[in-house]
Amino acid sequence: MNPLKLLAFLCPLAVGLATSQSPGDDTAKRLSDKGLRELGAYSLLRELTTNVGARLSGSPQADKAVAWGLATMKRRRFDDPHLMPCKVPRWVRGKEEVRLLTSRGGKLACYALGGSVGTPRGGIEGEVIEVRSLEEAARQGAKGKIVFFNRPMDPTLLNTFGAYGGAVDQRFGGAVAAAKAGAIAVLVRSMTHESDDEPHTGAMGYEDGVAKIPAAAVSIKAANSLSGLLKLARGPIKVRLELGCRTLPDAPSANVVGEVRGSEHPEEVIVMGGHLDSWDKGQGAHDDGAGVCQSLEALRLIKQLGLKPKRTIRVVLFMNEENGSRGADAYAAYAKTAMEKHIAGIESDSGGFAPRGFTTSLDAQKARALDKWLPALASFEADRFFAGGGGGADVGPLEKQGAVLFGLEPESQRYFGYHHSNKDTLDKVNPRELELGALAMATLAWRISEEGLP
Amino acid sequence: MNPLKLLAFLCPLAVGLATSQSPGDDTAKRLSDKGLRELGAYSLLRELTTNVGARLSGSPQADKAVAWGLATMKRRRFDDPHLMPCKVPRWVRGKEEVRLLTSRGGKLACYALGGSVGTPRGGIEGEVIEVRSLEEAARQGAKGKIVFFNRPMDPTLLNTFGAYGGAVDQRFGGAVAAAKAGAIAVLVRSMTHESDDEPHTGAMGYEDGVAKIPAAAVSIKAANSLSGLLKLARGPIKVRLELGCRTLPDAPSANVVGEVRGSEHPEEVIVMGGHLDSWDKGQGAHDDGAGVCQSLEALRLIKQLGLKPKRTIRVVLFMNEENGSRGADAYAAYAKTAMEKHIAGIESDSGGFAPRGFTTSLDAQKARALDKWLPALASFEADRFFAGGGGGADVGPLEKQGAVLFGLEPESQRYFGYHHSNKDTLDKVNPRELELGALAMATLAWRISEEGLP
Repeated sequence: MNPLKLLAFLCPLAVGLATSQSPGDDTAKRLSDKGLRELGAYSLLRELTTNVGARLSGSPQADKAVAWGLATMKRRRFDDPHLMPCKVPRWVRGKEEVRLLTSRGGKLACYALGGSVGTPRGGIEGEVIEVRSLEEAARQGAKGKIVFFNRPMDPTLLNTFGAYGGAVDQRFGGAVAAAKAGAIAVLVRSMTHESDDEPHTGAMGYEDGVAKIPAAAVSIKAANSLSGLLKLARGPIKVRLELGCRTLPDAPSANVVGEVRGSEHPEEVIVMGGHLDSWDKGQGAHDDGAGVCQSLEALRLIKQLGLKPKRTIRVVLFMNEENGSRGADAYAAYAKTAMEKHIAGIESDSGGFAPRGFTTSLDAQKARALDKWLPALASFEADRFFAGGGGGADVGPLEKQGAVLFGLEPESQRYFGYHHSNKDTLDKVNPRELELGALAMATLAWRISEEGLP
Repeated sequence: MNPLKLLAFLCPLAVGLATSQSPGDDTAKRLSDKGLRELGAYSLLRELTTNVGARLSGSPQADKAVAWGLATMKRRRFDDPHLMPCKVPRWVRGKEEVRLLTSRGGKLACYALGGSVGTPRGGIEGEVIEVRSLEEAARQGAKGKIVFFNRPMDPTLLNTFGAYGGAVDQRFGGAVAAAKAGAIAVLVRSMTHESDDEPHTGAMGYEDGVAKIPAAAVSIKAANSLSGLLKLARGPIKVRLELGCRTLPDAPSANVVGEVRGSEHPEEVIVMGGHLDSWDKGQGAHDDGAGVCQSLEALRLIKQLGLKPKRTIRVVLFMNEENGSRGADAYAAYAKTAMEKHIAGIESDSGGFAPRGFTTSLDAQKARALDKWLPALASFEADRFFAGGGGGADVGPLEKQGAVLFGLEPESQRYFGYHHSNKDTLDKVNPRELELGALAMATLAWRISEEGLP
């Protein structure tokens, strides 16, 4: 692009959209100027990803993350920084290997799925059958076999979370469905649009009364090779799966909580948060270091600008979102009995990409009342409310306490390239995109604190 | 993120935005399904960046790019694929080095600016003075010195093109301003928000009657070090600048042109394009391999879906946007005399990131007439028109022929991290984001072809 190109950028106005601030409130502008100069969310994320790294619930790294979160809140002089204890599952990974028992042999890149039982040492062997759905697993003759769930995420869906939602039943429910049909293990195509050799882990589940069989995700390249082999083979294709993973007793852990107390209605609380735990691959940068650091940054900016919110704005760094939601449960239990009214929950857990807006639990009719905030949110290109959705797994339970839920909705195309894989690292995060999300959250929280909610 | 999070994504509706197609036209959906399955823009970009690579005007690689463009149009069976010749500047880079003549010595990472004269072999030495603007260069005692332009891009501007526009006068006009004040050379802080050690090149200019002095961009790290040294130093700081770059005689080159002829009004033409040349660093992936491949892909999809546009949709791969716009001039000269009416020019030259909408030369009032297309463009999250802007440097001249201009407006935060640097490579492009831009362009071109413009 050469300088002439700039003619296009001198004074473009979004048609039909006000882009200026509401009269009399330059808060979005003040937040924006400070945030974009300092890029504080990224500085925090650098600390979290490089000093702590991956931090699966119950691990020493998760403990370190909790200590880091509390120290950060204290350093920022938040009001009442403290830990809210909870017990968390403690699942540990071990050896993980899928070996093709064909004449050419070879391994398939794999990760055990979180929560899976291990195999006996030396692994288990079985013939592979490929299916596309839980139903198909039940119909096929799966007895004694290894069921390979290979339905891709639908590439034609614009929002990649929709495509994830349409495929992730295989990961979460595949082992149960296959075990009911007599299978001895499952392999699941990784939940991603990309076509490389990186597996993506994630939670799976078991059901009481159904045999617990081991489950692993294979990379897309591995899934495609295996599928190709199955198509071409004259006889059965066998693999040996060895997983050393196991579940230890629950471990003590905690949410990290801090706030800026409301000046007029301190008992009315706006929760803003993300989850502090991550999977044990990569660095948990987008999932959900981003949400954690955006929440901390949003409150830092509000505080350092000397804004005095009428209602309490509280940051909660939730523990154990990935495999148990024990932190969300602990906070919900607290909220149920606290002498406080939780009026809103704002969650960021969709990656640290440039924001587009917020999902909200309000219906379309009620969400119209928020249109007055769109001009301020346009400062961060976050000026859309997607009504009739939720906020996220961590703030979700607060709806029962009457809270309106909001979920930061960033641009979604890249998320599942990194999600739950070794690729979810700091270098995949753009400091300005991350900050814009923090600024949108700060602005939304500020407006709610000043004006309340419908 | 765990599966519970998905509750937020099951049925979100953008408040106040229709997201369905216009009744009776499912073209956007058909384009989308095919495009997102096949990701054709990325396949083309892989070819262009890996088989051709960087392709500065007049270079053998630019010739190769022209041949590739023509072969691609023929392979896609576009109507009338042909070359439109133009002469282009031929500037070649050589040695480039900035050496600190301090007791500790050391080099500053630098690139010659495009079009700069070289230095004598062995370089030139001079004392450095730091300034923040062209005006300041004139005021300072620059005689015999090396002027260092160090005003950063404004980080507080949301749209990074605005920040670029506010700083790039130093790169383009710094040498003239400094030479008028008697300086012997200029160093310019790279045009980027990032803070690494990668310089960013780009075009600079000279003026008749003003001495032509050599000009180089230094990386942000180098700029910050140099500025720090200047602040701390008790005496003058000298550097030796050596540039081996030079300008050779103009070289023959060409735009590459192909189309799908209109079925009802073949003489009414919608031009869709990007520029085929790039700087000689990196691979020209975002700038502007993206625009080239999106344009080719948009027309491929229209053709392969069997759509028969009423008006002609023409792809033009413009040569020499970066340092001369000779291709744009050649096309404008053609358009002026052709027995055709150019009704629209759609350009993509802001990177292959997820689209947000289009700038348009229509004013806000007239742009309202395009609102009927927003539901279709929402299929790609490109449902905004930014009125009162332009389209880009290449389609810009067509406004004089009565064409309405459009510029694809993608998410802008990452662009200047890569722009004109070694970092502008294929791995920085997300295949789905790139394709969404192509789909938005295809949809806009299709609607214009069917319904005309206000």
